Amino acid sequence: MNINKTIFEEKGRFGTYGRTGVLHTRAGDVLTPTFMPDGTRGAVKGLTPQQVVDTGVQVVLANTYHLHLAPGEQVIAELGGLHVFANRKGPMLTDSGGFQVFSLGEHTKVTEEGVHFKDPKTGDKRFISPEISMQIQLALGADMIVAFDHLIGLGQETPEQVRDAFGRTHRWLERCIVEFKRLTADMNDEQQPLLFGVVQGGLDLELRKQSLEIIQNSDVDGIAIGGLSVGETREEMEMVLQALAPLYRADKPRFLLGVGTPEDLKIAVENGIDMLDCVLPTRNARHGSVWTALGHKINLTNAEYNADPKPIMRSCDCYTCASGFSRAFLRHQFKVGEPLAGTLASIHNLRYMSRLCEEYRNV
Amino acid sequence: MNINKTIFEEKGRFGTYGRTGVLHTRAGDVLTPTFMPDGTRGAVKGLTPQQVVDTGVQVVLANTYHLHLAPGEQVIAELGGLHVFANRKGPMLTDSGGFQVFSLGEHTKVTEEGVHFKDPKTGDKRFISPEISMQIQLALGADMIVAFDHLIGLGQETPEQVRDAFGRTHRWLERCIVEFKRLTADMNDEQQPLLFGVVQGGLDLELRKQSLEIIQNSDVDGIAIGGLSVGETREEMEMVLQALAPLYRADKPRFLLGVGTPEDLKIAVENGIDMLDCVLPTRNARHGSVWTALGHKINLTNAEYNADPKPIMRSCDCYTCASGFSRAFLRHQFKVGEPLAGTLASIHNLRYMSRLCEEYRNV
Repeated sequence: MNINKTIFEEKGRFGTYGRTGVLHTRAGDVLTPTFMPDGTRGAVKGLTPQQVVDTGVQVVLANTYHLHLAPGEQVIAELGGLHVFANRKGPMLTDSGGFQVFSLGEHTKVTEEGVHFKDPKTGDKRFISPEISMQIQLALGADMIVAFDHLIGLGQETPEQVRDAFGRTHRWLERCIVEFKRLTADMNDEQQPLLFGVVQGGLDLELRKQSLEIIQNSDVDGIAIGGLSVGETREEMEMVLQALAPLYRADKPRFLLGVGTPEDLKIAVENGIDMLDCVLPTRNARHGSVWTALGHKINLTNAEYNADPKPIMRSCDCYTCASGFSRAFLRHQFKVGEPLAGTLASIHNLRYMSRLCEEYRNV
Repeated sequence: MNINKTIFEEKGRFGTYGRTGVLHTRAGDVLTPTFMPDGTRGAVKGLTPQQVVDTGVQVVLANTYHLHLAPGEQVIAELGGLHVFANRKGPMLTDSGGFQVFSLGEHTKVTEEGVHFKDPKTGDKRFISPEISMQIQLALGADMIVAFDHLIGLGQETPEQVRDAFGRTHRWLERCIVEFKRLTADMNDEQQPLLFGVVQGGLDLELRKQSLEIIQNSDVDGIAIGGLSVGETREEMEMVLQALAPLYRADKPRFLLGVGTPEDLKIAVENGIDMLDCVLPTRNARHGSVWTALGHKINLTNAEYNADPKPIMRSCDCYTCASGFSRAFLRHQFKVGEPLAGTLASIHNLRYMSRLCEEYRNV
């Protein structure tokens, strides 16, 4: 935790709770608000690092769970860390692995010590604890890392489950902080990555507020909002973000985990969120779903685009639109299963999200 | 046929039969020798047009058969032709569709009129004749097109089959030329694409020489060598190319169809070939097979590259090698099925082939 240096500087405000700012990381400054694509396996699917940067993306997220399982953090550490491995020059962030352990692991079992699960591919038994998550993330070498939390899906959860996960998340945070301090003891302020604590509490607004207070008073560099976009309605997510918006301290960055449609980005950013990540823009793009003007969505695989000479979005300045690829060409490439289709659509969707953030930064 | 203008200028020579030159097309000049990747579906798989150009590629080939079946030449013509469709600024070439009709079509039946076959995807009956091939290719709008020939695989062919295909290829060529002249009657020299006639004759050197003489005395702009790399040994291919090498006229470009390993490229170019196309460099790359120094081949999916920090090839100036992607990263990306792996490996293999050609141009 970088108690002696400025991590976040607020530069301006919009609406009631929205703000622009600069986040200082060891790999460079990040202008906020900012959208961060998920490079699950270390790199954004189908895009070169240069293509990613060209969309305006400033931070790439990589998934601790996936990289731990393959090729393993030791391989990446030996090769010089995630930046060298994935040939990424700018800031990187790793998540805690928690979300994936709960959503992708098999036979997942939570104890106070940590989470036992099976690798769905190999069947191997695995175990991740708060300490192990810190060890993996520091071995991977991202510039921003996230505390290991206990996540529950929203929809059929009981108040007991919510309260149980809430309590465990905070106990685990303390263990993450102890392990983080141990592992970074010989790093100076400039070398240390930033640690984000995770706010949980389901849809219980009182628990959410309590959780935020606990996190904000902990020895962390940033505030992450977890446990949203996991089954609840947009209105419920907005309700939680609105409840938290007046309570944030100004000097720490606020990161909303796993949220990434244009509508959700607007709700988040207007409620004081600085950073968001999601697989959605690129995953949707690989299935032909792209955003056009005013948040409309079209699917390029539809037959109606068979002979459509228009670009995805006339006013878009992404490589795909600006160089004149037609909907007809993209539909054809999707239809015959060409990988270029997913690349070109991903470039568009990432630029779309980045431009939305740029517009907020220019309000 | 551009009888009033210079199509090919020889600029230099190497070895006994090798030569460098400039091919003039309506979409710009092409320095030879040159390797042309196959953009089967209109675009090189997994690469943006800019990434293709950055490898040094000067001409992109597209497959008449595939584009005829989907999306159809009418759709592409309505959208402004192949260049607009695929967002390709430089010269393009289409093949005749003949090779694919024989290798991919189902229930293929050859008559003197043309070839009947079934679309393997839809089961629809299709028919391509010399005239129809010209019509499709001119609708697609490539800058260089190829006469429709009768191809036979080498290995179990009888002399009768070879002679039959040989004769038909030349009869079909005359029909191609008539149809080409009819379709391009209102184009001036600058607007006309170049037409290549195809030399056939299997492994029968006398037939090959006769075929070359017929093609060279026909009203075509370029000489294509067909029916090689279809089952024969490398020595047999070399024997045919050596037999033809002393017989070419200087003023027409020579295009070897469907040949594309570094070894085969050397044999071809040293025997007077100016242009080659093949899917191999990109198809191999998508399966992890890449060329390194001195024509060696490695497969990036092999476990031995798991922690290998070296680029594919230290002295390579392609984007993939020059920006430092390690074999370990590529192995990881291949192993987990990421499309970026195929893109980065394709960039390397295309640059490898282009650089080989550049080296010949600088002899």
